Amino acid sequence: MKVLAGSSSRHCARELASILKADLVEVEQKVFPDGEVYVRVPANLRGEDVVIVQTTYPTPALLELLFLQEAAHDQGAAHITAVVPYFSYSRQDRVFHDGEIVSAKAVAELIELKADRFITVDPHKEHILGFFGVEAHGVSAVPLLAKHLEKMGVQTVLAPDKGALDRAQFAAKCLGAEFDYMEKTRLSGTEVVMKAKSLDVRGKTVAIIDDIISTGGTIATAAAELKRQGATRVIAACTHGLFLNNALPRLHANGCDQVIATDAIETQVSPVGVAPVIADVFLERRG
Amino acid sequence: MKVLAGSSSRHCARELASILKADLVEVEQKVFPDGEVYVRVPANLRGEDVVIVQTTYPTPALLELLFLQEAAHDQGAAHITAVVPYFSYSRQDRVFHDGEIVSAKAVAELIELKADRFITVDPHKEHILGFFGVEAHGVSAVPLLAKHLEKMGVQTVLAPDKGALDRAQFAAKCLGAEFDYMEKTRLSGTEVVMKAKSLDVRGKTVAIIDDIISTGGTIATAAAELKRQGATRVIAACTHGLFLNNALPRLHANGCDQVIATDAIETQVSPVGVAPVIADVFLERRG
Repeated sequence: MKVLAGSSSRHCARELASILKADLVEVEQKVFPDGEVYVRVPANLRGEDVVIVQTTYPTPALLELLFLQEAAHDQGAAHITAVVPYFSYSRQDRVFHDGEIVSAKAVAELIELKADRFITVDPHKEHILGFFGVEAHGVSAVPLLAKHLEKMGVQTVLAPDKGALDRAQFAAKCLGAEFDYMEKTRLSGTEVVMKAKSLDVRGKTVAIIDDIISTGGTIATAAAELKRQGATRVIAACTHGLFLNNALPRLHANGCDQVIATDAIETQVSPVGVAPVIADVFLERRG
Repeated sequence: MKVLAGSSSRHCARELASILKADLVEVEQKVFPDGEVYVRVPANLRGEDVVIVQTTYPTPALLELLFLQEAAHDQGAAHITAVVPYFSYSRQDRVFHDGEIVSAKAVAELIELKADRFITVDPHKEHILGFFGVEAHGVSAVPLLAKHLEKMGVQTVLAPDKGALDRAQFAAKCLGAEFDYMEKTRLSGTEVVMKAKSLDVRGKTVAIIDDIISTGGTIATAAAELKRQGATRVIAACTHGLFLNNALPRLHANGCDQVIATDAIETQVSPVGVAPVIADVFLERRG
């Protein structure tokens, strides 16, 4: 087995190769001055079981994945697995307005063109796996995040809204903590308060958990409120840290004592590696 | 027939729709803060002959093309033509080093997935058309450029190097001018002179013509030498004006009196619209 480390997932690829005792191939990648992506795979992939690890964010990284698949396919790889820790375009998972497309499905069709299997981590919605015409797996990084939160002494896990409650409940169960979701109440006009639906956060170390932190607006507001309501420490945790528009400084300024993400997107706050849960897909097959 | 104007080729799409007396559909396009491309096609494409006009430069524009093809396909278009005035990745048209891929072929395979026909303008190499499993046309903008150069009083057409001579010869024939190519002579060490192989440029209005102007380095050098050799006016002309790294100011500073490109890439110096030569592919079929 050969694990190809795409430029957006070098860390995850190294860990995955190590767990699977597979050969690691560091892909040569550059971007030309006109923005065109160049790849070179310095390895012979003929007849090999090839695993390409490449998060598809930002957009040129998607093209890099497709090019690496092309390299494996052209060289005559026996089997190609596309491991996409963060699957971009997953939030356009249905037609919201007439004339739109399901971008997640369109991207899935590009990937499946030269892949026999697809693995992603914490897809925004599970049904996106059904867009793939090949074997597709969504694995959860929540147990890994929970283990990290446990070490940090987290007593309470909160979902930023009711829709994200399942994830918070799962994390809470993993680390033996209580859980709840944040509820918005409109006071008057534009004034809104956010608080945990039922739990009292006074004196507690609290984690807010979500799949994606984008600009982090909701979580910043929640953190500020939790601090005002007496939480001792507030930690924001997510699988996919996009951290757009200076999200990290804003989260800290609003009372987040710490922000942690996984290396599904390799950020400056990605202490949690997702390789172990990805490796499980391969090991279950072997076992 | 419906002509969809992608965000990188609005001008060309409008002219093409006008020549073909087809309905123009202005595509809604935006880029999210995370760089994801969003498209919406405000038209019913069911059963329609759909023409999507979208240059694939820069890289996110390629994804926009693929998304527009998905929209047309999903809505049940009867026939889809992808018109890509500038086909990016056309310069990685073969494997130069072991482990590379033929990116132009990989991109062709993405486009042909949901297109019945492909049309591009002045492909860097003709053989890239063979990478498409569907009907593929390369049309030439040289006659349109030549007509423009004729109005500017061009007497001599030069290729920047011997490899580009065919294009210069074709342009010269169109406008009834003489032609030649620029030859580099190494004097000593790094010192190099460039001059027209056989022609004397003194007192003449000269055009240097190429398919792509990227950083424009060679053409800037050639322009400076031609001015030194007595050319009255030097015009740089190309089909695809990438103009990277401040190419335009540098070309002007080096003696180019004027730079002209087509709207295959919509630049600030694109007075030549390529729609007429694209339209010919459709009109020949009708005629």
